[in-house]
Amino acid sequence: MKIAIINGPNLNLLGVREPGIYGSRDFNSYLDGLRKLYPNVELSYFQSNCEGTIIDEIQNQGFKVDGIILNAGAYTHTSIAIADAIRAVKAPVVEVHISNVHAREDFRHVSMISSSCLGVIAGFGLNSYRLALEALIAPEN
Amino acid sequence: MKIAIINGPNLNLLGVREPGIYGSRDFNSYLDGLRKLYPNVELSYFQSNCEGTIIDEIQNQGFKVDGIILNAGAYTHTSIAIADAIRAVKAPVVEVHISNVHAREDFRHVSMISSSCLGVIAGFGLNSYRLALEALIAPEN
Amino acid sequence: MKIAIINGPNLNLLGVREPGIYGSRDFNSYLDGLRKLYPNVELSYFQSNCEGTIIDEIQNQGFKVDGIILNAGAYTHTSIAIADAIRAVKAPVVEVHISNVHAREDFRHVSMISSSCLGVIAGFGLNSYRLALEALIAPEN
Amino acid sequence: MKIAIINGPNLNLLGVREPGIYGSRDFNSYLDGLRKLYPNVELSYFQSNCEGTIIDEIQNQGFKVDGIILNAGAYTHTSIAIADAIRAVKAPVVEVHISNVHAREDFRHVSMISSSCLGVIAGFGLNSYRLALEALIAPEN
Amino acid sequence: MKIAIINGPNLNLLGVREPGIYGSRDFNSYLDGLRKLYPNVELSYFQSNCEGTIIDEIQNQGFKVDGIILNAGAYTHTSIAIADAIRAVKAPVVEVHISNVHAREDFRHVSMISSSCLGVIAGFGLNSYRLALEALIAPEN
Amino acid sequence: MKIAIINGPNLNLLGVREPGIYGSRDFNSYLDGLRKLYPNVELSYFQSNCEGTIIDEIQNQGFKVDGIILNAGAYTHTSIAIADAIRAVKAPVVEVHISNVHAREDFRHVSMISSSCLGVIAGFGLNSYRLALEALIAPEN
Amino acid sequence: MKIAIINGPNLNLLGVREPGIYGSRDFNSYLDGLRKLYPNVELSYFQSNCEGTIIDEIQNQGFKVDGIILNAGAYTHTSIAIADAIRAVKAPVVEVHISNVHAREDFRHVSMISSSCLGVIAGFGLNSYRLALEALIAPEN
Amino acid sequence: MKIAIINGPNLNLLGVREPGIYGSRDFNSYLDGLRKLYPNVELSYFQSNCEGTIIDEIQNQGFKVDGIILNAGAYTHTSIAIADAIRAVKAPVVEVHISNVHAREDFRHVSMISSSCLGVIAGFGLNSYRLALEALIAPEN
Amino acid sequence: MKIAIINGPNLNLLGVREPGIYGSRDFNSYLDGLRKLYPNVELSYFQSNCEGTIIDEIQNQGFKVDGIILNAGAYTHTSIAIADAIRAVKAPVVEVHISNVHAREDFRHVSMISSSCLGVIAGFGLNSYRLALEALIAPEN
Amino acid sequence: MKIAIINGPNLNLLGVREPGIYGSRDFNSYLDGLRKLYPNVELSYFQSNCEGTIIDEIQNQGFKVDGIILNAGAYTHTSIAIADAIRAVKAPVVEVHISNVHAREDFRHVSMISSSCLGVIAGFGLNSYRLALEALIAPEN
Amino acid sequence: MKIAIINGPNLNLLGVREPGIYGSRDFNSYLDGLRKLYPNVELSYFQSNCEGTIIDEIQNQGFKVDGIILNAGAYTHTSIAIADAIRAVKAPVVEVHISNVHAREDFRHVSMISSSCLGVIAGFGLNSYRLALEALIAPEN
Amino acid sequence: MKIAIINGPNLNLLGVREPGIYGSRDFNSYLDGLRKLYPNVELSYFQSNCEGTIIDEIQNQGFKVDGIILNAGAYTHTSIAIADAIRAVKAPVVEVHISNVHAREDFRHVSMISSSCLGVIAGFGLNSYRLALEALIAPEN
Repeated sequence: MKIAIINGPNLNLLGVREPGIYGSRDFNSYLDGLRKLYPNVELSYFQSNCEGTIIDEIQNQGFKVDGIILNAGAYTHTSIAIADAIRAVKAPVVEVHISNVHAREDFRHVSMISSSCLGVIAGFGLNSYRLALEALIAPEN
Repeated sequence: MKIAIINGPNLNLLGVREPGIYGSRDFNSYLDGLRKLYPNVELSYFQSNCEGTIIDEIQNQGFKVDGIILNAGAYTHTSIAIADAIRAVKAPVVEVHISNVHAREDFRHVSMISSSCLGVIAGFGLNSYRLALEALIAPEN
Repeated sequence: MKIAIINGPNLNLLGVREPGIYGSRDFNSYLDGLRKLYPNVELSYFQSNCEGTIIDEIQNQGFKVDGIILNAGAYTHTSIAIADAIRAVKAPVVEVHISNVHAREDFRHVSMISSSCLGVIAGFGLNSYRLALEALIAPEN
Repeated sequence: MKIAIINGPNLNLLGVREPGIYGSRDFNSYLDGLRKLYPNVELSYFQSNCEGTIIDEIQNQGFKVDGIILNAGAYTHTSIAIADAIRAVKAPVVEVHISNVHAREDFRHVSMISSSCLGVIAGFGLNSYRLALEALIAPEN
Repeated sequence: MKIAIINGPNLNLLGVREPGIYGSRDFNSYLDGLRKLYPNVELSYFQSNCEGTIIDEIQNQGFKVDGIILNAGAYTHTSIAIADAIRAVKAPVVEVHISNVHAREDFRHVSMISSSCLGVIAGFGLNSYRLALEALIAPEN
Repeated sequence: MKIAIINGPNLNLLGVREPGIYGSRDFNSYLDGLRKLYPNVELSYFQSNCEGTIIDEIQNQGFKVDGIILNAGAYTHTSIAIADAIRAVKAPVVEVHISNVHAREDFRHVSMISSSCLGVIAGFGLNSYRLALEALIAPEN
Repeated sequence: MKIAIINGPNLNLLGVREPGIYGSRDFNSYLDGLRKLYPNVELSYFQSNCEGTIIDEIQNQGFKVDGIILNAGAYTHTSIAIADAIRAVKAPVVEVHISNVHAREDFRHVSMISSSCLGVIAGFGLNSYRLALEALIAPEN
Repeated sequence: MKIAIINGPNLNLLGVREPGIYGSRDFNSYLDGLRKLYPNVELSYFQSNCEGTIIDEIQNQGFKVDGIILNAGAYTHTSIAIADAIRAVKAPVVEVHISNVHAREDFRHVSMISSSCLGVIAGFGLNSYRLALEALIAPEN
Repeated sequence: MKIAIINGPNLNLLGVREPGIYGSRDFNSYLDGLRKLYPNVELSYFQSNCEGTIIDEIQNQGFKVDGIILNAGAYTHTSIAIADAIRAVKAPVVEVHISNVHAREDFRHVSMISSSCLGVIAGFGLNSYRLALEALIAPEN
Repeated sequence: MKIAIINGPNLNLLGVREPGIYGSRDFNSYLDGLRKLYPNVELSYFQSNCEGTIIDEIQNQGFKVDGIILNAGAYTHTSIAIADAIRAVKAPVVEVHISNVHAREDFRHVSMISSSCLGVIAGFGLNSYRLALEALIAPEN
Repeated sequence: MKIAIINGPNLNLLGVREPGIYGSRDFNSYLDGLRKLYPNVELSYFQSNCEGTIIDEIQNQGFKVDGIILNAGAYTHTSIAIADAIRAVKAPVVEVHISNVHAREDFRHVSMISSSCLGVIAGFGLNSYRLALEALIAPEN
Repeated sequence: MKIAIINGPNLNLLGVREPGIYGSRDFNSYLDGLRKLYPNVELSYFQSNCEGTIIDEIQNQGFKVDGIILNAGAYTHTSIAIADAIRAVKAPVVEVHISNVHAREDFRHVSMISSSCLGVIAGFGLNSYRLALEALIAPEN
C-alpha cells in the first residue's frame, strides 16, 4: 500500500517553531518511527512552503498512491486551489492538523479544503498522522 | 483503561436514519466489534436525545474514565452547555462525527464544542470511533 | 388515518401565556373540538418543554403515524436536532405556528426545521392545526 | 363570500415551468376544481408578471373582497411595495407558496411580505391555495 | 419654472392608507394648495405603482423640467433602476418622504436613490413637498 | 416572601468546575449562609442540566413565588424557550451570573433572556445571588 | 437561426446616458451594424424599463428563439423574478453588460440572474452583444 | 418665535474646510442673511467641537425655544448620547446636513440621531438651514 | 469607606427625561436617601455630559476611592476611551443602568465597558445604584 | 497581433479533472484548433499551479503582447496579488472561466481580479477563450 | 521647523497605566529626551481626554505647524470627527501608537482616522513618536 | 548589525507600476542610497512574487539577521502562512507599506500579518523602509 504525506508551509520548522503549540519533535524523526510501525506501507514524504508546489505534488501523487495525508498548514484556511486539486485526483485525501485548530484564532476555524477531503483529524499532535494512516489503511472495522 | 462513548440525538437510529449519509449498520453491532478488537479497554456506551442528559453523563463519566468519545450529533453545532461540561470534567474528550460535516450544510461547519475537546475526528464513518479510541489509548507514537 | 400532534415548550400554558399573542383558549379544549370535527382521524397529542423528549416522540410516532403536526415552539428557531429527527422518520411533518412568527421578533423569522418539513402553516391561531390536518389528510385537491 | 386570488411572476407558466418544483398541472384547471369544491365562494383570479400591476390589483380588490390569497412569486422576497399595499387595504391577505420555499435557495427564505399578512401557508403544492381559502372562510374552529 | 412631482407605489392611497403614519389628507387636495402658493411654478404631477413606469416618467420629464420632486415610496429602498434613471437625466432630483423613514423599520433606513439625488427631505408630512420645491426654486439664499 | 433560585447546566459542579472562573465554594454551602442572612425569605432551590426541566421549574414556581433568581448558565446565550417561559409566568425574574460574562468569550456576551427579565446582575461571584435577592425583596429604596 | 436581444431599464437612453460609462453610440445604430455582420441570424430587439414586461418578453421569446441575449440593466442586481423566468423557458440566455460591472459600485457586483444563465459577458462595451451572439451561434469550436 | 441653531464639530471651519464639499462661505455671513430674511424669528447660534457641550446646549435650549436646527457634523454618525438628549427635551429638532451625506463615504450613511428628530434635510448646501427653518415655522401648508 | 458615583450624559435630566423609562425621581433626592441609608460610606457624586470629563473624573477618583459606581449612559455603548480609563485606575468599577438596556434598542445591548468593569447591574431603576453599593462594600457574603 | 493565454491552477488537468464541470477535452488539443482558426494571431500559452509564477508571467507578457487571456482558476477568488499584477502591466487582460462560476459554490461568486480586467467571459466551456480572443482582436464592431 | 504632538485619552497616565502594554516611562521624561535629540525642531505638546478639545487643538495647530504627530488613543477607533478635523487643516498628520494595536482586541484593529493621515506608525513603544518625527522632518531619503 | 529587506509581489516593478500610487523611483536606486546612509548596517535584499518563496526567505534570514523589514505587498492582506513564518523565526519583523493602505480599497485595510510583527509603518513612500530600519537599529530613544 502506498501513502503520500504532504506537509505545507512552515511545517519544515517542526521542533523549532512555537514548540508550545507544535511540540519539540522534528518531523523526520517522527516519520522514521511511523515507517517502522507500519513496515508494509510505502510512505512518501514531501514538504513545501509554496501553495503551487503543493498542488503539483497532489497532482503527481494523486493518481499513483492509495491515499494522501495532507497537512496544508496555513493554506488550509485560504486555498481554494488546493481544494480543487484534491477533487481533481483519484486518491482519497485525509486532512490532518497537529494542533486543535478550533481552540486557536478564529481564522483557523475555517477550512477551505475539508469539504473536498475524505475526513479530518485534528488536535492529536504528531499522532494525528498515524490516525490518518489508520483511517486510510483500515477504513472498515 | 476505561473509555466512555457518548452519542447524542438521533444516533439511536443509526442504520435506519438517512443511510446514504450515516450508513446502514446499527451502532450496537459496531460496538460489539470494537469491544472485541480492544479487549483490554473497558468501553461504556450511552445515548440520549436530550442535551441535559448528555451533560449529566459527561459529568458522571468525566471524573471516572480515562477518556470520552463524544458524538454530540446536532448539539455539536448549538450547545455551549455541553462545551462547558467538557471543560468542567477531568477526562479528555475526543469529538467524533460519522459523516464529513464540512461537506454538508453550512450550519454543520460550526462546532461549539471543538475548542473544549482534545481533538476532532470526522468523516470516516463508524471507523471515526475506533480512531478516537486509538487517539485516547495511544496518544504518543 | 393516524395523525400525531406534538407541541413544544410553553405550549402547555396556552390560554394563560401572553393571551394577546396566543389567545385565551387552552389546547385541550381546542383538541376536543378538532377530534369531533374529524371523527375518522385518530389524533394523538403530546407536549413537552424538553427538546430531547420532543425528539423521542418524533422518533416514536414517526414510523407509526401517517403524519405529524409539529409546533416546536421556540425550538423552531434553534434546534438542528429536531430537524434531524424529522428527516430521520418516515411520516411527513407539517410545521405549524399559532402566531404569525414573521410579524414578531427577528429571531422568530428563522426556522431551523422548515426545510426538513413538508410545509409550513403560520399565523392562523389554533386554526393552524386544523389547516395542517387538512394538508395531511387531503393533500391532493 | 368574495375571495381574490392574485398570482405573481411566472405563475402563468404553471404546468410548463420547472415541473419538478411546481408540478405539471396548470392553474386554470386547478381553479375550476376549487370553484366546484367551494360553490358558495365567489373566487376572482388575477395574474401578472409586473410588481406594480399586482399592487394595483391588491388596491382594487382590497376594499371589495373578504380576503386575498396572494402568491407573490419571486416578489415575495424583494418587494416592500407589495407589503405596503397589503397594509394599506382592508381585506386580510394570506401568503401562499406552492413549493416549500424554506427547502430551496437562501434568498427564498426571506419574505418581505409575511409580516404584513394574516398568515403564511407554504409547501403543499396547489393545495396551499385551498388551505388558504379554508383559513379565510373558516378562521375559527 | 417647471417642476415635476412624481409619486411612487401606494401614494395614490394617501388619506386612506395608514393615516397614523401618512396623515388623512389626499394628495390632490394638497397639490391644489401648493399650486396656489407657488403660482409662478408650473407643477406637473404623476403617480404610479410600477417601478418601470416611474422610470419612464423620470426619463420623460428629466430633459424638460427644471427639477423633479420624487417620492419613490417603497422603491426608494430597493430600486437601483430608478437611481440609474435619476443619474441619466439632466434635471436635479430631490428625494422626499412624508414620514421620518429613519424612525420606522430597518429596511426603510436604506435608500438606493439618495446618492443619485441632489438632496433628501424626510419627515415633515406633506410639507416635505413644499420644502423640496423651495430647495429647487431658491437653491441659494 | 417566597423566592425561587433556579440554576442551569453545570452549576451543580460549582467548587469543582474551573475554580479560576467560578470560585471554589459549592453552592449549597453558600445557600445555607444566604438563608441565615435572610431568615424571613423562604428560599427554594433547584438545579438542572436540562433546558426543558428548567422551563418546567420556571412554570411551576412562576405562579407561586414572589420572584425568581435565574442563573441559566450556558442556556442564557442560546435559549429562546427559557425566555418564553419567563414572559409566560407572573413572578419577576432576575438574571444572575457568577462571572462577568462580558469579559469572557464573545458568545457569552449575547443573552437571549435578558430582555424578558426584570434586570441583570453579573460578575460578583456568588454575591450576585444576594444582590438579586436584595433587588427582589427591596425594589424601592 | 433566431436570437432575441432584450434590454432592460435605462438602456433606451444609450448614447445620452452617462457616456463616460456607456459610450455615446445609440443602440439602434449598433443593432443595424450587427444585423449586417450576421445576415443569417434573425435578430429581434426589445427594450423596457419595467421588470414585469421584461419577464413577459422572456416568456414570449423563450419558447420561440434559439437564444436570448439579455442585458437586464439594474434589474440584474435585484430581480429574482427575471431569474425565475430564465429558468422557466427553453432558450439559453446569455447575460451581457456594456460596462465592467465589477469595477463599479459594490451593489453591481451581485447578479441575481447569472446562475440561471448559460454564461456571462461583461465589460466590452456594445461589443459584448456581438460576443454573446457568437457564443450562441457557435457554441463549439 | 425662537429657533436655536446648533452646529457640531469642524463646522467652525466652514469656508476654509474642504470647500469642494462644504462651500467657501463662512457660517456667520450666511447667518446674517438668514436673520434678515426671517426678521420675526429669534435665531440663536452655537457651535462646539465637543459632543458633551453640544448635549449641554440641546438641554439648555430644548426647554426654551420652539425648535432646534441641529447639524451634528460627524457626531451624527456615532453619538447615541446626542440622540438621547434630543428625545429628552421638548423642542422638536430638525437634522440638517450641508452635503448630501448619502453620496459620500459609507460611514456617513448611518445616522444615530435621525430617528429621534422630527425630520431630516440634507444636501442643499447652506440652504439646508433655511429649509429647516421653514419646516419649523410653517409646518402645515 | 469611599465610593464615587459618576453619571454620564443626560442623567442630569433624571425625573424630567422620558419618565416612562427612567422614572420621575431626580437623582439628588435619591442620593440623599442613599447617604442616609449608608452613613458609614463617604459617597461622592459627579455628572457630566462630556466623555472626556467623565474620563478625567475616573482618573481623579480611581486612585483615591474604594470603588466607583459608573452609569456611563449612552457612552456605555460607544466609548472605548472610558473602558481604557477604567482599566487604567486601581479602584474597581461597577457598571449600572437604571433601565433594562437589553429590553430596549439593539444598540443598547452592546457595552464597550462591561469587560473592563468588576460587574454589571441593570434594570432595577435607581435601586441599581444601591445594589452596586452593596456589591462594593460587601463583596463577600 | 500577439495574445498570451495564461492558465492557473489545476487547468493542466483539463479533460481529466471533474469532466462534468470542465469537459473532457484537454487544453492543448483545443489550443491547436484555436491557432488554426486565427492564423494571424500569435498565441502564446502558459500554465502554472503557482500564484507567484502566474504573476511572473503576467509581468513578462504584459509589456510585450497586445492582450492577455487569463483563466486564474481558483486564484480568481483569492488573489489580490494577481489583480495588482494586472493593473501593473500595459496589456489589457480578459478574465475567462470555462464553467459558469456563478452557478457553483458561493466562494466562486467573488472575483478579486475582475475589477482590474477589461472584462469578463464565463460559462461557455472552452469557447470562452475564443470569445476572449474576439474581444481582444476586434474590440469595436 | 515646528511639530505639534497631540496625545489623546488616558495617555496622561503613561508610566502608571497598564505598564505591560504601555511601558513604565512617563511621557514628559520621554519628551525631554526627544527635544534634546532634535534641537532644531520646535516641539509643542498637548494632551486631553476630550475628543472635542483634541479637535480644537488640531484646528489650532493645523494651520501653524509643519506637521502633527497624533496619538488619538481610543478615539482612533471611534472618531469620525477627529478624521474630519485632520482633513480640514493644512499640516500633514502622522498617526502613531505605542502598542501594536493589531495584536490586541479586534476593536483596536479599526482606525477611523488612518485614511485621513499621511501615514501610520504603530508598535514601537515611545520610539513611535521619534519615527513619526523623522517621517515629518525628512520625508525624502 | 544585519537587516534583511524582503519585498513581495509586484514590488519588482516599482517605478514602472502605477507611479501615482507607488512613485517613479525603482527600488535598487533607493536601496543604494539607504546603504550609503547606514554604512554600518549590513542590508540584504530579496524580492519574490511567490508567497512560498517569501516564506522560504523569512525562514532563511529569520535565524541569521537582527531584524527583517517586510513589505509583503498584496500577500499582506491574505497570507496566514507568512504570518506563521514570522512567528516561527527569531528576528523581529517590521511590516512596511509604501502607500497609505488605509486610504485605498477596503481589502487593503486588513492585514493578516500585523499581529505577528513588531510594528507597522505605512504611507511614507520609500521612506517607510528607512523608518523601519531606524525602528530596528535604535529601538530605544
